[in-house]
Amino acid sequence: MQDSHSDTDSPDWLEAIQWTADGLVPAIAQDAGNGDVLMMAWMNREALRLTFLEGHAVYWSRSRGKLWRKGESSGHEQTLVDIRLDCDADVILLKVEQKGDIACHTGRRSCFYRRLDRNGEWVSADPVLKDPDSIYGAGGNSHE
Amino acid sequence: MQDSHSDTDSPDWLEAIQWTADGLVPAIAQDAGNGDVLMMAWMNREALRLTFLEGHAVYWSRSRGKLWRKGESSGHEQTLVDIRLDCDADVILLKVEQKGDIACHTGRRSCFYRRLDRNGEWVSADPVLKDPDSIYGAGGNSHE
Repeated sequence: MQDSHSDTDSPDWLEAIQWTADGLVPAIAQDAGNGDVLMMAWMNREALRLTFLEGHAVYWSRSRGKLWRKGESSGHEQTLVDIRLDCDADVILLKVEQKGDIACHTGRRSCFYRRLDRNGEWVSADPVLKDPDSIYGAGGNSHE
Repeated sequence: MQDSHSDTDSPDWLEAIQWTADGLVPAIAQDAGNGDVLMMAWMNREALRLTFLEGHAVYWSRSRGKLWRKGESSGHEQTLVDIRLDCDADVILLKVEQKGDIACHTGRRSCFYRRLDRNGEWVSADPVLKDPDSIYGAGGNSHE
């Protein structure tokens, strides 16, 4: 039922997922407490396997081409509460506890801080809780 | 700042979005009331423009290659409350009122009804609220 794949140790639950041609799946992170949608990022098989094993969100950074343990620079780890899969098996939903209450590299709680107003303008609707320079250090990697 | 695009009438707010090479953007639909993440689908410029203009979620069906007005078969429309954009401008979050309280074509509230248990098995964690046959008619298009 599944396409061939290189990792022969890949467990069945990983193979149930409809990976993209690039071997990725979008993963939405939601605050398990208040339900806020914090961010969406991408995972490959290894990222999702590690997320399950380690109990913290691990993504695949498409821009850097490597695994990205959320919080590795910022300290803003996401502790896993639940992993969900959608009906088409092509999107993951993580319910997490967000350390520091900040998921976004801009220092905001959620990455979805821009709101489309009635005039068709994107406006910043949520406050910066912490200066990114103080999270990452000036000149640091603001995307972890 | 933006790549060239075919629709010269496309407003600035649409052009602020980082569309994929295929001209799409992932869109998460969240229940504006209780915060449940209902589904994720894809939009092209026209789908997002219509969502904003009409006040109901319109997606782009990749499998059928056409616009998909959510609820067109099921009646389960999503009334728009808010449109959000993430920090990288490549993911949309819609806050919606979900008509019929059912977003999923399986007759469940949310598409994310499968949960990974501790043994690494996907288990169905949410109930079917309505038989899909009674939503779409037997033999109907269960993906609308």
